[in-house]
Amino acid sequence: MITYERDFEWQVDDDAEMLMAEAMGRVVEEREKGIAGYYNLPEDSKMIVTEVNAYAGSNDAVKSCDTIAVIGIGGSSLGAKAIDSMLRHKYPEARRLLFFENPDPVEISQKFSTIKKDRTVFIVISKSGSTIETMSIFKALIAHFDLDLDGEDRKRLIAITDENSALCHFADCHGIKTYTIPHNVGGRFSVLSAVGIVPLTLAGYDTCSILDGGVAMVRRFFNGEAEHLLIKAVFIARHWESHRMNVLFSYATFLEDFTKWYVQLWGESLGKIDRCGNRVGLTPLGQIGSVDQHSFLQLIIEGPRDKTVTFMKIENFENPLTIPEITLENIEKTDFVNGRTFNELINAECDATRESVAQQGVPVDAIVLDRLSETNIGELILYYELLTSLTGAMLHINTYDQPGVELGKKILAKKFHKAKKI
Amino acid sequence: MITYERDFEWQVDDDAEMLMAEAMGRVVEEREKGIAGYYNLPEDSKMIVTEVNAYAGSNDAVKSCDTIAVIGIGGSSLGAKAIDSMLRHKYPEARRLLFFENPDPVEISQKFSTIKKDRTVFIVISKSGSTIETMSIFKALIAHFDLDLDGEDRKRLIAITDENSALCHFADCHGIKTYTIPHNVGGRFSVLSAVGIVPLTLAGYDTCSILDGGVAMVRRFFNGEAEHLLIKAVFIARHWESHRMNVLFSYATFLEDFTKWYVQLWGESLGKIDRCGNRVGLTPLGQIGSVDQHSFLQLIIEGPRDKTVTFMKIENFENPLTIPEITLENIEKTDFVNGRTFNELINAECDATRESVAQQGVPVDAIVLDRLSETNIGELILYYELLTSLTGAMLHINTYDQPGVELGKKILAKKFHKAKKI
Repeated sequence: MITYERDFEWQVDDDAEMLMAEAMGRVVEEREKGIAGYYNLPEDSKMIVTEVNAYAGSNDAVKSCDTIAVIGIGGSSLGAKAIDSMLRHKYPEARRLLFFENPDPVEISQKFSTIKKDRTVFIVISKSGSTIETMSIFKALIAHFDLDLDGEDRKRLIAITDENSALCHFADCHGIKTYTIPHNVGGRFSVLSAVGIVPLTLAGYDTCSILDGGVAMVRRFFNGEAEHLLIKAVFIARHWESHRMNVLFSYATFLEDFTKWYVQLWGESLGKIDRCGNRVGLTPLGQIGSVDQHSFLQLIIEGPRDKTVTFMKIENFENPLTIPEITLENIEKTDFVNGRTFNELINAECDATRESVAQQGVPVDAIVLDRLSETNIGELILYYELLTSLTGAMLHINTYDQPGVELGKKILAKKFHKAKKI
Repeated sequence: MITYERDFEWQVDDDAEMLMAEAMGRVVEEREKGIAGYYNLPEDSKMIVTEVNAYAGSNDAVKSCDTIAVIGIGGSSLGAKAIDSMLRHKYPEARRLLFFENPDPVEISQKFSTIKKDRTVFIVISKSGSTIETMSIFKALIAHFDLDLDGEDRKRLIAITDENSALCHFADCHGIKTYTIPHNVGGRFSVLSAVGIVPLTLAGYDTCSILDGGVAMVRRFFNGEAEHLLIKAVFIARHWESHRMNVLFSYATFLEDFTKWYVQLWGESLGKIDRCGNRVGLTPLGQIGSVDQHSFLQLIIEGPRDKTVTFMKIENFENPLTIPEITLENIEKTDFVNGRTFNELINAECDATRESVAQQGVPVDAIVLDRLSETNIGELILYYELLTSLTGAMLHINTYDQPGVELGKKILAKKFHKAKKI
């Protein structure tokens, strides 16, 4: 179960009501017309789980592997990585997921050295099928591990991409197993498509329960049972010029990759030129508690009132580690937590910080997971995706494109083509 | 060698000249009067290196260890962690540094399981000596590894703290080796004090060269040979209300922890109530290229003009990994990088993105390291520390305190005391 809380008073007025109704209408339309497809993934992707399990059972390369190497960047890696980080400690038997994202030679070389080809399945993920980083790393993998694309090695390869993409056609040429991404699901909304579900299922995670959590959230939302989401969206959208940053302050180290997923979702969706030609944009920031209380908190408390802050915590870590009843000479003032669990300590830090931030008049809300279950994770993903869609609708922007990144790609290609001519 | 570049035209007018002179005066005064002590660390800490090496040579626990466990949070861990992440791949023989920062039971338990007591040296770092997270984790370590503080085990313990702090007195009681932090060096400016130098030297890094880089930067700055720093500071300070975020976009995965160090330094120093009672604050954001081109770039390009962006890259990774001359059927359009190194690719991505961001009118500057040398790292640290001091002086704030975080600590203690009474 997840509880959504709000620490500040805010009255929904007529204008806000209108905005909420309008945004809700747009999201319903997006779903009905298939403009955005992520709403249906929790239901539709159950078939993928079944299929992947069947495939894994009949494929010797998968059966004997201990590592799933995922080659993908941005939306092709962040979601699966976030879930892997969150659930890893609960699945000591799960296969290792190794993500090749950055075209950084040091990182790639280091990761190469930890891989044995005959114990690894390689999953290449690119929506367009021609992402320069992903394809370059894939080529380096082919050369380094001497992958024979027309021989036995192709059985340890999987491609995940758009139907009819370049990668899709390449995979067809070699009979490489391919899963497709629905055309109306963008990279940053794709974690519950094959993009996330295939690697996570192969690793051994209970992806069905993750999807169940998503299904429940979608159902509640479209049944009108998640008004808190609309209220949060309208608050954020109406105050974006004064409160242009949202800090997601998450209290657990293993939530760090989730905050990165959130940063992509929020930043790439909500930083746009609106339909009137104005630049709008909400800047997401991921922080981890209690570590970043010793880093970023000062700025939140005494800095300008330009941020909203969302605290996220897990009530029950299911880990009994306790602060022992030890008194250290001269450091007795820290004894007030003796005998308590670290679970209690980190959550009390969250509560105390939340209270101190709210006292300063910063708009604070909170997401409280009763525990780190698969269904909670599925719900959380849909919560943020729906919040993003609603906020985008209220800002009158296209939430699902990313035209701003194209210029850099063109300049990059030009740099290399020019260099080649010389 | 590091080159500092600026991609936008900006005229230094009379007011700016005045601000620059005033800030320079304040920094000189801070140094002369000992208000801030970090300026002297590069020179003064060389003695620590000598001493640590002598200590390590005569201490069997250190000689036989393969892991240095650092228990510290915020300024007590971020700096050493940043340098460890940057240099690790160049020092395959270095001892493992394991950081215990967050009071997260899952993370702590996981790290416990990777430690063997008789191969580990434990360094407890807390400036005040009574940081609740650090002391709680330290107690858990004592219990878990059955550390006998009055027996042989104390030889594998080191304390780093302020003179006369609670931790200092505790260490005295047990004859535990202690290094002190100068009273006028705050946590976030302490990486080149014992806080960073002791663990990094014990691990096996060439800390002398890091300090050399710092010495050179301090000398150049106080000789008036680093005007670019003053110009950057005055631009940022004068535009803080319109451009209230600075993105440090670093092109290498191993720079991620450095961006976290920068986030603490910048955020905690520059988020303050100024001497007129106004809230001022510059929000730091760390991004990693090229990964975050697929995450955050869209917002920078099309979102509001509320950010400055600093690109950081390393010209020569000293790693030859190449994109092989492989053509994948149907994906020929990615062949324009074939035969090039990943070093070239990631830096071309940096250049192309930088160009595309600058073209949008975003104020862009760049930090270009010729290579990842120890001296460059030392210079980089001082560069950011000096920039922070100058910017703080221009904003008329106290750069070195952090009063905002106290309230949360009080609430935390109250929560536990109240709970105990029930």
